[in-house]
Order: sequence, then structure tokens, then C-alpha cells
Amino acid sequence: MSEDRKTWRIGVAGLGTVGGGLLSFLDAEPDFAPAGGRAVVTGISARSRARNRPVDVSAMQWFDDPVALAKSPDNDLFVELIGGSDGPAKAAVEAALAMGKPVVTANKALIASHGAHLAALAETKGVPLLFEAAVMGGTPAVKMLREALVGEDVISVAGILNGTCNYILTEMETKGSAFGDVLAEAQRLGYAEADPTTDIGGFDAAHKITILAALAFGCAPDFASAEIEGVDQVDLDDIKLAHDLGYRIRLVASAVREGEAVAVRVHPALAPFGHPLAETRGSLNALFIEGRRIGRIFLQGPGAGAGPTAAAVAADIADVMTAVRRPVFQSPASGLKFAPVIDPANRISRVFIRLRVKDQPGVIAAVSETLAGAGVSIDGFLQKSAQADGSVPIVLTTHATAESIVFEALERIARLPSMLQAPKLLRIARL
Amino acid sequence: MSEDRKTWRIGVAGLGTVGGGLLSFLDAEPDFAPAGGRAVVTGISARSRARNRPVDVSAMQWFDDPVALAKSPDNDLFVELIGGSDGPAKAAVEAALAMGKPVVTANKALIASHGAHLAALAETKGVPLLFEAAVMGGTPAVKMLREALVGEDVISVAGILNGTCNYILTEMETKGSAFGDVLAEAQRLGYAEADPTTDIGGFDAAHKITILAALAFGCAPDFASAEIEGVDQVDLDDIKLAHDLGYRIRLVASAVREGEAVAVRVHPALAPFGHPLAETRGSLNALFIEGRRIGRIFLQGPGAGAGPTAAAVAADIADVMTAVRRPVFQSPASGLKFAPVIDPANRISRVFIRLRVKDQPGVIAAVSETLAGAGVSIDGFLQKSAQADGSVPIVLTTHATAESIVFEALERIARLPSMLQAPKLLRIARL
Repeated sequence: MSEDRKTWRIGVAGLGTVGGGLLSFLDAEPDFAPAGGRAVVTGISARSRARNRPVDVSAMQWFDDPVALAKSPDNDLFVELIGGSDGPAKAAVEAALAMGKPVVTANKALIASHGAHLAALAETKGVPLLFEAAVMGGTPAVKMLREALVGEDVISVAGILNGTCNYILTEMETKGSAFGDVLAEAQRLGYAEADPTTDIGGFDAAHKITILAALAFGCAPDFASAEIEGVDQVDLDDIKLAHDLGYRIRLVASAVREGEAVAVRVHPALAPFGHPLAETRGSLNALFIEGRRIGRIFLQGPGAGAGPTAAAVAADIADVMTAVRRPVFQSPASGLKFAPVIDPANRISRVFIRLRVKDQPGVIAAVSETLAGAGVSIDGFLQKSAQADGSVPIVLTTHATAESIVFEALERIARLPSMLQAPKLLRIARL
Repeated sequence: MSEDRKTWRIGVAGLGTVGGGLLSFLDAEPDFAPAGGRAVVTGISARSRARNRPVDVSAMQWFDDPVALAKSPDNDLFVELIGGSDGPAKAAVEAALAMGKPVVTANKALIASHGAHLAALAETKGVPLLFEAAVMGGTPAVKMLREALVGEDVISVAGILNGTCNYILTEMETKGSAFGDVLAEAQRLGYAEADPTTDIGGFDAAHKITILAALAFGCAPDFASAEIEGVDQVDLDDIKLAHDLGYRIRLVASAVREGEAVAVRVHPALAPFGHPLAETRGSLNALFIEGRRIGRIFLQGPGAGAGPTAAAVAADIADVMTAVRRPVFQSPASGLKFAPVIDPANRISRVFIRLRVKDQPGVIAAVSETLAGAGVSIDGFLQKSAQADGSVPIVLTTHATAESIVFEALERIARLPSMLQAPKLLRIARL
């Protein structure tokens, strides 16, 4: 292994939380790579040169332009921590790969949107493109799917991939606070961005599950085909009523394969108490991987944070230093294709339905007859006492039914004269 | 990657459950490796040549002697699935490595007992020695510690590593059956060996945690220093009384680092309802990894079985085919040393104590005064009604206390005239 025992000169673009964490890590442990060799940051680029950094950067060359850093002959490995699916991040990664320089990135939007193109570029040049930190921060889901489960016939990956949403849902449930109040507090504490759309709209989780789907199924990452619902439509009453029936609400990201076709989705879903997703609290992330041979593997850990994410970037750097050569996804990029999308018309789910009805006789009969007439079988049913305004909250859960049938039945229920507002539907997580 | 697109000729020694599973896997997916290339089994060795195999082996060369197979120039990669820490398994692995041939093994006893010696041999020859299947079957704990958490300062690994014991404990609790009855049933179903000592005595879990400790802490595997208690001393009343206090009993394997010193232990321990170890049921395995930067990662999955374990062997074969080169443990074998062992005298635990006392006044006062006098603080206390024989069962749990102090107090309690049998102590799992 003598060839590995050399100094690797690292260029780092983007010095936010993760970039700062990486500088601290490499400053503390420059010779962390297990086969020896040293990783020394020789060049940096960030939005503001003036800002204070966690370590002394005076010996590192400054670049205003990350593309110039990516092209510089003074580094052997380019680390992209700028973020964003396009713009300077994409230009810099392309520039580094085009020069035959290994790239490590934490950029989920970039890989979810342009993964196949970048993989082809990397493999044409024969250099690694690694992104462990893009999914689940310090919890190694990417390596698990890319390397440890090679040859395994993975049929689904599903879990909690956005810590901000999970923190908000957990706080709402435990403190009984409204969505907006918890979000504002999370922003104050730095757990949520000033513009929280990417997180609470489900887009961040969708980037991540898109990447995991590509690794699990050997297809091209296909962010454009992901179905995305965020947590912004979940209110405190949903959480309380689901709790009354023995469930917690989580933002579940899932990718399922049926034959050649794939469905990638993010939506709020109910998980029963005791289920590992229901017991994943705060900003933790969790993932189930199900395969034909292995059965089910469950992985839970920190999904963000400077320390864990920087450690994941460092592990990728070590992989470059120890000459790990893998296709970027499960199979060579030259053969990567978008998978066909599973037809949602045939989708089968258990669902949670919330109604607000008038306090009068015959309402329950009308609702239950409508469901029975459509062939929807009720699993759990809870009617609460009439509220101060005279309305009666009803929640029920169903057995597994084609979603199209449930939607039709709900349209009929919505037209019942006793309904005070549109029925609300949340799916129950597949277990 | 053109150099990888070639045929690898595999020699497989040992054709039991895992070996048969591997033959089936490679027969079904000879070109499973993600970077291309084919894995073809060209030579086999097993105890009995006459036995039926899951695939046609007529084109494979038969070897009575696994060492001859390991030395044969007709294979490029030797897979050892014989088992046992010494004897033919060790001789064959040494022979293959000495020839500069990559080795993949599922043999936990071999790696736990001779890991440093074999790692040195492999690294001297510059060839990989991989053993993902030795721990947690198809759940990739080894790769996670060796590669994904490189540079991480791991301070503990702990979990459930023996599926047979966990199956027995789960069955005892859910069916209320005695240890011996469940063991006999497990043997009948093939879940337990005819000679179950390795499993129920804790030795199998100790082999596995010894290997994980070496990977986590970068020290030489040191099976001889492991402290081992099995599940054979756990009876149905322990399980019921622990359940009454809100706990389940699990066989917990743990490795903890304090500075340079390490403690590797296997013993029954109580985990509270809702804790992931308590919720790990049947033959599942589970592992917590705790590090300074990453916090805690939890991993759960199948610990045995032909499919999962063969998939883990195949993943190692893919690593060889894609030229992954890592030190066998965290750091080069030339520097591997046994870690000093943490002094048990200073060990702090919460414990569960079970007593059987005479049904007479003052007993509880005597017990609680003895504990209080020693400085042991009681956390939970349960006295059951007097039994048919007039004895009264008492169980209690303590707050964290130096074990040496608890042992002394228990010796005094054992001498109280009201005691009907020796006090029994089980530890509560560190959370």
C-alpha cells in the first residue's frame, strides 16, 4: 500500500456548518486515513472571505471562484459543500471531474438532479464521485447500499430522512404546540432555515430518497418523478387524534420497486407506537432497507450536524485515499436509466381519515355505509365529544385498500350534508 | 476499471448452510459485482463429498483437504466457511494468505482468536482478508466500523449478537416456557445446534464483540480477555419478574473504551420496554455504535441464515473484485496491539436483584437497611405475594453504583436469616 502513504491536497468549496466541521476534523486528525497518508487542505472557497473560520486558514489558498478551485493543479481532491442543484456547485463538480480529479460532496440536490450525468463523467475519467454525507449525515446509508448490499435484490427503502421535520413533529406531539410556533422556535434555535421550504415542503427528504432509490435499484436518480408532500399540512389536531388511535405522524420517504418500475414518494404517514419509525424522535434519521435475501435491516442515527456530517465527508476522503473504486451507483453509469414509475392508480394503502361533522343522529351510519358500499373496511374508529362549536371530530383508520377507491368514497363522504369541512386523509406507513 | 472486468475463480471450503447459500447465490448471479467481472466457483472442499448440494457442482474440482484447495493455482480467491478457531480452517486461511491469495471468511472464532496474526500475514502479502459475514450475518456492521466510521472516535459498541439466545429469551417471555423446553424446541427446529454451548454459553457473541472491538478501537482482537456469561443461568422467574418491573432480559455483548483501556463483555442484561434492545425480538441482531462526533448509530437486522450470510460473503467477494484495499482492522496490522483491560473493580452498573425470603416481618427493612448502609440506592422495588411454599419473591433495581459495593452488600444480605436462597443479580443494560 505504499502508493497510498502520501499527502493528499484537498480543495474545499463551501465553508458553512459542514465545511467548517471538515476543516476542524482534518486539522485535528490529518493522518486519520487507516491505510496511512495525510489529508491537508490546501485551497478553500466560500461566499465571504472575511468571516471567521474554526481553524487557521492563512496557509490555505483562497479562491473567490469555486470553479477555479476545482480546476487548480494545487489540489488532488475536490470537496464540494456549497449546496444547490445547479449554479456554482454543479459547475465546480463538473470542472473537477472533467480534469480527472476525485470529488466528494454532501450535495443531495445536485446528486438527486444530475447524478447520472455526473456519474458518467466520473466513470469516463475513472475517478470516484462520493456523497456519503448527502444522506443521513453521519449514518452510512450510502455505503451500505452501494457496497455492503451489492448483489442484494433490494425491494424497498423507507424511513425518516429530514431531521428538521421530525424535530417539529416530535415537538408538536410532546409539547402540544402548533406547527407555526414550533417552526419559529426551531428557526430561533438554528434547527430550521430562515426559508424552511426545502425541509418542511419535503424536498430535502425527496432529494435523499431519490439518491437511495438509485443506489438500491441501480437506476438513474430521478428527482423529477418523485411525489412530494411536506409536513406543512399536518396540524396539531391531526397529531392528537392520531395519538388517540395509537399512532405518531412522521414524514416518511420511501422508494419501492415492483419489477422494473419504481415509486419514490415523500408524505406524512402514521406509524404505530412501538414501531421504530414512531420511536425515532427529535432530529434523528431512520431507514429500513428490505431485500429479498437479507430481509430487513434498520439503521438509525444522526441525520445532520457539523460533527457527524464532517465525519461522513472524511470517510469518503479516506475511500479516495485507499483507492476504493466503485460505480457511483449500483451499476456502471453507461447503463444507468430512469426506471419506469409505478402507476399510482393501483396503489394500496391503509389510511387515517379525519372528519368534522354535525352533532346529529345518523352521521356515523352515513359515513360507515358510504365506506362499506365502496368496499373500504374500517380498522379503528374514534368519535370525540362534541366541541364548543357543536362540531364532532371523528377519526378512523382503514384496512389496506386501493387508494383510488378510498378517494372516491371520500368524495361521496365530502358531499354528505352533515360534513362541516373537507375530509382529511393521511396514509399509514407500510410496516 | 477494465482490469476488474475479468473472471474471478473462487475456491470454497465448507459447504454447510452458508457455503450452500453462497453456491446458490453465485449460481444465480455470477456477474453480481457492480464493477463487472464474474465470480465462478472452480473448487470446493467439504466434510462429505457424497452429500447433495443446492447447485450442480460437477464442474467444480473437489478437494478432500481444504489446505490443498487454498494452495491450488486454479482459484484466485479463497472462501473459508469451515468454522472453528484452529484446525483446518486456520491452516487453510494461512496457506491461502501465504500464497498472496485474497481470503473471505465467515469464521468469527478464527478472527477473534487469531485476527492480528492473520491480518499481519495478509498485509505483508498485500492482499485483503475480509469477514463481513462473521458478525451479524447480512447486516454490515464490519464494513460500517472499518470504512464508514474511519477517523471517528468510537467509545462503545454494544448490542445483541447471538440470534439463538435472543430467540430463546423471546420465546420464554412470550410463551412462558422454561429455558430447557425452549432450547429443545429450538434444536428441533434447527435454530440451535445439537451442542448449544457456543451459543447459550455466550462464546459466539463474545467472538463477535471481540472482532467489533478491534475494528472500533484499532486494537488487536483479544478473545482471551473477554468476560463471558451466557443465558443458561436465566430462568423463567427472572424473565417474569423483570417483566413486572418493565424490563426484558437480553444477552448483551459490549465493548467499551476508556482512554487506552478496553472492556469486552457478554452477559445477560435488562433493557426497559421501548428500548431498541428490548424491542429486538426473535433471532434478530442489533448494535449500538457510539462515537464522539457521530453520537449514536443503531443498526438492526438478521444475524444468521443462509441468504443474509451468503449475501455478506458475496459483498466481500465484490470488495476483492473491485480492489478495495483497507487494513484488516482500523490501522495497519504491524501496529496492532492488545488494549489494556479496564479494571473491573471500578465498574459502575445499575442492577436487578432477585431475592427469595421468609414471609415474616422486618425482612424488607433488613434488606433495605443493608443496601442503604452500603450506599446502594434503590430505584424500583416489587414484593410479590407469598408463594405456596411460604416464600416471598422480592425483586429490586438500583441506581448506578460501583459493582464492588453491590457485591459486598449482597454478601451481607445473603447472610440475613430470612434469606431462603442466594440472591441473584443481573445487570441493567447501559442505555
